[in-house]
Amino acid sequence: MPEFLHLLPPEQALSIWLEALPWPSSIGAETCATVDALGRYLAEDVVANDPLPPFSRSTVDGYAVRAADTYGATPGLPAYLEVVGEVRMGEGTSLHLKTGQAALIHTGGMIPEHADAVVMLEDTQQARSRQIEVLKAAASGENILQRGEDVQAGAQVVQAGTRIRAQEIGGLMALGLAEVSVKQKPRVAIISTGDELVAPGQPVGPGQVRDVNSYALGALVDRMGGRISRRRLLGDDRRALEEELREAHAADDIIVVTAGSSVSERDLTANAIQELGEPGVLVHGVHIKPGKPTILAAAGIKPVLGLPGNPVSAFVVAGYFLPPLMRRMLGVTEQGRTPSIPARLAVNIASETGREDFVPVRIRQEADEWVAEPVYGRSNLIFTLVRADGVIRIPPSATGLEKDARVTVMLLQ
Amino acid sequence: MPEFLHLLPPEQALSIWLEALPWPSSIGAETCATVDALGRYLAEDVVANDPLPPFSRSTVDGYAVRAADTYGATPGLPAYLEVVGEVRMGEGTSLHLKTGQAALIHTGGMIPEHADAVVMLEDTQQARSRQIEVLKAAASGENILQRGEDVQAGAQVVQAGTRIRAQEIGGLMALGLAEVSVKQKPRVAIISTGDELVAPGQPVGPGQVRDVNSYALGALVDRMGGRISRRRLLGDDRRALEEELREAHAADDIIVVTAGSSVSERDLTANAIQELGEPGVLVHGVHIKPGKPTILAAAGIKPVLGLPGNPVSAFVVAGYFLPPLMRRMLGVTEQGRTPSIPARLAVNIASETGREDFVPVRIRQEADEWVAEPVYGRSNLIFTLVRADGVIRIPPSATGLEKDARVTVMLLQ
Repeated sequence: MPEFLHLLPPEQALSIWLEALPWPSSIGAETCATVDALGRYLAEDVVANDPLPPFSRSTVDGYAVRAADTYGATPGLPAYLEVVGEVRMGEGTSLHLKTGQAALIHTGGMIPEHADAVVMLEDTQQARSRQIEVLKAAASGENILQRGEDVQAGAQVVQAGTRIRAQEIGGLMALGLAEVSVKQKPRVAIISTGDELVAPGQPVGPGQVRDVNSYALGALVDRMGGRISRRRLLGDDRRALEEELREAHAADDIIVVTAGSSVSERDLTANAIQELGEPGVLVHGVHIKPGKPTILAAAGIKPVLGLPGNPVSAFVVAGYFLPPLMRRMLGVTEQGRTPSIPARLAVNIASETGREDFVPVRIRQEADEWVAEPVYGRSNLIFTLVRADGVIRIPPSATGLEKDARVTVMLLQ
Repeated sequence: MPEFLHLLPPEQALSIWLEALPWPSSIGAETCATVDALGRYLAEDVVANDPLPPFSRSTVDGYAVRAADTYGATPGLPAYLEVVGEVRMGEGTSLHLKTGQAALIHTGGMIPEHADAVVMLEDTQQARSRQIEVLKAAASGENILQRGEDVQAGAQVVQAGTRIRAQEIGGLMALGLAEVSVKQKPRVAIISTGDELVAPGQPVGPGQVRDVNSYALGALVDRMGGRISRRRLLGDDRRALEEELREAHAADDIIVVTAGSSVSERDLTANAIQELGEPGVLVHGVHIKPGKPTILAAAGIKPVLGLPGNPVSAFVVAGYFLPPLMRRMLGVTEQGRTPSIPARLAVNIASETGREDFVPVRIRQEADEWVAEPVYGRSNLIFTLVRADGVIRIPPSATGLEKDARVTVMLLQ
């Protein structure tokens, strides 16, 4: 399992990883109040028990009529209708219109029996008490929202695997579904390793630095819809790492290990992951910058991701490999859509053919367009990412991007 | 205050609203654990107490050297250096290099005194015990991440008003800041009104429909970083509405009222808002589709937003007016960046000049591009939004958009 003998293109590496895992995943379902389900993933298709709207409704303020009674009506030759009542909001109506009759109705009101159109108030005129002039012909169905026009009873309205947004919450509540079955949040173990790392609250001695990855990656996992299983901060101690990996393997759904940065630390991590179980390390080294020393592995049904120790590489690689893994574990059938903004590149950027580069950029608005400028800084500076609004991808086929090129900035949210 | 006498362009309406409110807002600060601060807004600038990294570090595995000692070194004419020790990870080093000396160092290790470059392991060769050949000259500073190169002590690293992302959490933790001062979440009252509305758990009688807006808007507010203050579902009862508005005005930071859909219900809402205090209703009617009957108001220092009753209009209008309001209340100085995806329009869309239209669309990938197709459905169908991936904006200057036009799809997340 020597490192970097075969640098795989990231897309191919991802395929190998996903193919080595069993699908569908073992992530279970749980019941959740619909109002608390924002950002969760539906575990089952949702079917409407009732039609929506549950009755035909007026979309305007006016008079419910029989359209045929208004045939040919104009301001010069109005149709005269008898007003037989008013449809009150929030109540059923027992009105049945006969030929020549109309009923006052408000927006959202229930269409009475035998009415098939609504004439807007401004297209009518009071003639006598209980009589109106209709100044404009109405077509059958005009200004009516039909029963079931939004959703038919029995229709599948939201698919399993859908990420629940504000409008899904509205839609589910409209159907009276106050609870919903969602996928459990995958538990993602984050194991940070390195003799130089210090946990929060501890003093930083000479030669030591604070652990960044546990927290930046933890927040990333949170953002992606996972549940962080924060694990021990480890030194470069193979036995301790193996033990922690075994515990995570028993308890969690996905295991992420950030290795120390030196070659020996990376080898230690790869060997410890290999010991965790078959099929073991699948990919060791990806043709990506930053992030070359990435490890993709599986132990039984559990995916393991070995990340470089430097925070920017770890962040970019996690942002590349975890979302498609988690989407698949959560049963998402739709393609991922990275929120992005189209921009113009402010400068030339060089790149190596065959390698996929991810370049952190800032964006600023100039006239009517966004301009993207690389954040200069080495890949081991965490504040490079703090200064960045997003990243741009330079595909393996390119030798770089030219100034003024149209680029897609994937926003770091 | 008659409705729709002056339909204002939405941008102008927004300016009038924001200008009528006092700035900075009265939203206070609170302390939050950094690990829990994802999505919150910084209340104060963050200044680094210590430099990052706290000491100069090697970025490779190799030998720390004095660059001058390697001058002119080549494989044919190597420089010979005495290895005087090893820098151990996570410890300070007391090594001081003298001319002709080198120290073994790992990636991330602390650069010893008087060393000013690191030669990569692969550019060296073991000569004798404790002696190496350096095969390549090193420049001063090569392969060293200087103390403070990421962040200087005393530097302002994150500005007040910044939305905290995963990388900010990493950066703050790197600086040892386990707590952070964030803006309180603005409390947003949501008052849904309409005689026809039924609360969850209640049976739906004839002529009645379930309340959607409280929940869809609530989730939207949650997504924007607000705290929902869920209020009573009201019938079209002016006294009850005035009472609820007063309570919300006393307790909450922003008040959102969705009116019933009929003209009389909308008038009732506008009048009740007007009674709440000066300056009262500022805008009544916006040249936007959907959402024309929008009310923008202020009572003292508190903004009030009156939304149309139909769920799609309410959702689109809230999505237009609330984010800039909330950003300003939270002290955000940066421009809003709506996550979006560039796409090609699948069909012609007509629009009225002078009006700003927001059209819900689905997107699908075709070859290398996204194609956007309008979701057909009336603006009062909540599932129109469920079926939509985003919306496209048709500016007031256009009479529509042509098939194959390049459009920006603002993602509904």
